[in-house]
Amino acid sequence: MKNSELITSKDNPSVKLYRKLSDSKKARKENGLFVLEGARLCFDSSTLPMIKLLIITETAYEKYCDKILLPDDNIIMISDELGNKMSDTVNTQGVFAICKIPAKTELSDFVKCGGKYIVLNSLQDPLNIGTVIRTADALGIDGVVLCKCCDLYNPKVVRGTMGSVFRIKTIETDFEDIISEFEEKGITSFAAVVDKSSQSLVDCDFSNGCAVVIGNEGNGLSKEDIELCDEKFTIKMHGSIESFNASTAATIILWEMSR
Amino acid sequence: MKNSELITSKDNPSVKLYRKLSDSKKARKENGLFVLEGARLCFDSSTLPMIKLLIITETAYEKYCDKILLPDDNIIMISDELGNKMSDTVNTQGVFAICKIPAKTELSDFVKCGGKYIVLNSLQDPLNIGTVIRTADALGIDGVVLCKCCDLYNPKVVRGTMGSVFRIKTIETDFEDIISEFEEKGITSFAAVVDKSSQSLVDCDFSNGCAVVIGNEGNGLSKEDIELCDEKFTIKMHGSIESFNASTAATIILWEMSR
Repeated sequence: MKNSELITSKDNPSVKLYRKLSDSKKARKENGLFVLEGARLCFDSSTLPMIKLLIITETAYEKYCDKILLPDDNIIMISDELGNKMSDTVNTQGVFAICKIPAKTELSDFVKCGGKYIVLNSLQDPLNIGTVIRTADALGIDGVVLCKCCDLYNPKVVRGTMGSVFRIKTIETDFEDIISEFEEKGITSFAAVVDKSSQSLVDCDFSNGCAVVIGNEGNGLSKEDIELCDEKFTIKMHGSIESFNASTAATIILWEMSR
Repeated sequence: MKNSELITSKDNPSVKLYRKLSDSKKARKENGLFVLEGARLCFDSSTLPMIKLLIITETAYEKYCDKILLPDDNIIMISDELGNKMSDTVNTQGVFAICKIPAKTELSDFVKCGGKYIVLNSLQDPLNIGTVIRTADALGIDGVVLCKCCDLYNPKVVRGTMGSVFRIKTIETDFEDIISEFEEKGITSFAAVVDKSSQSLVDCDFSNGCAVVIGNEGNGLSKEDIELCDEKFTIKMHGSIESFNASTAATIILWEMSR
């Protein structure tokens, strides 16, 4: 980083682009770019090929300079003060990146015979989505499908996955299309419902591949979407409690899928 | 609520007490009181016997008056503006309560032979603790033990449990004491660890009662605390991911305990 200019203004074009990508789904889509924050995410070997620009504060550069594997042209240095302004967190590490959104996979390439998939339908909370992706990765699920959810490259989703979003296969697609694709590949689709008369989760046979569909945090799955699935099941609960929260239910389901 | 005075000042003694109890563990301990916020929690039949004082905004009183089962002497009405100041949330429902902390159970009464218990050791995040209590209740676990955790009556814990804290048995106690009590009752204690050489969670026999110990979010259990337990196990994971987050691990463990 010899002769490099220290950027202090939030009007710098790269800094402005970072903030726009951080705040706006539309900007991410139009530019085909998304952002990362944090040393762990920005320096992970799985993210390196996607990084177009690393934005790093003076203090962070001193601390992490031996972890930076990018050419100088792909790095800009900013003041600590500007880093604080850019950050989404209270105590920023001062490491930011602008990354290229990977090319979209074809549905037919995404679904393989005998695979195990989790389908998130209308989930809105980015932290829930992030946690599900992280857990699915840890449990060796083959892919995560997002339908009518918040954007996969929302910074809160990306951070919540702790990098799993770059390891596990993901796709954003239409619900009817993915259900058709599962049907074509001979994969049974299951709707997770809150309905005591349905079969119990523990009685489902996931051994020959499966696609499990989880609905919105507050309202669950719509009647129409449940009917598109081959089967439905419920997590049997004790006593009076209304339901698990969405990510707890997802964890139990993912665990049973991989068990 | 005839002839009742409308309170508008944050210097009102009850309002001041509410805020103190909300903010300070020490104040909760000294007074033997804690606070609730939200219509669902404050009007639940399980909380009614504990409520000493209901604090309600004018608007909330009109909306919920048919749900209030307390005598007028136990209710004070406040302005909507003051309700906004008291609230922990962005859109308050304007319903608050000051409640009596239930009498402490004796350890020997808490643990019953053949029971299933989850022990949280040094967990710090109130939301994690709340979620574990809620999930344990939903899955019919016999009790939740807190050792060196954040306060059970922390408002964030209470809210996170969605009322489960008043349904499931809980106790705050010393770790060595509870382990001795389990030993005396013939209940096997298991330490949950991140260690690939340990036995797998799915190979543990929980059918004759068990006490599973979960450690701190970042550091897990200390070596000494692991050694106090009879057995240890790990959740086998796929690939490179470091570990589940604490509440995901707890969910999987609680599920296996109750399965």
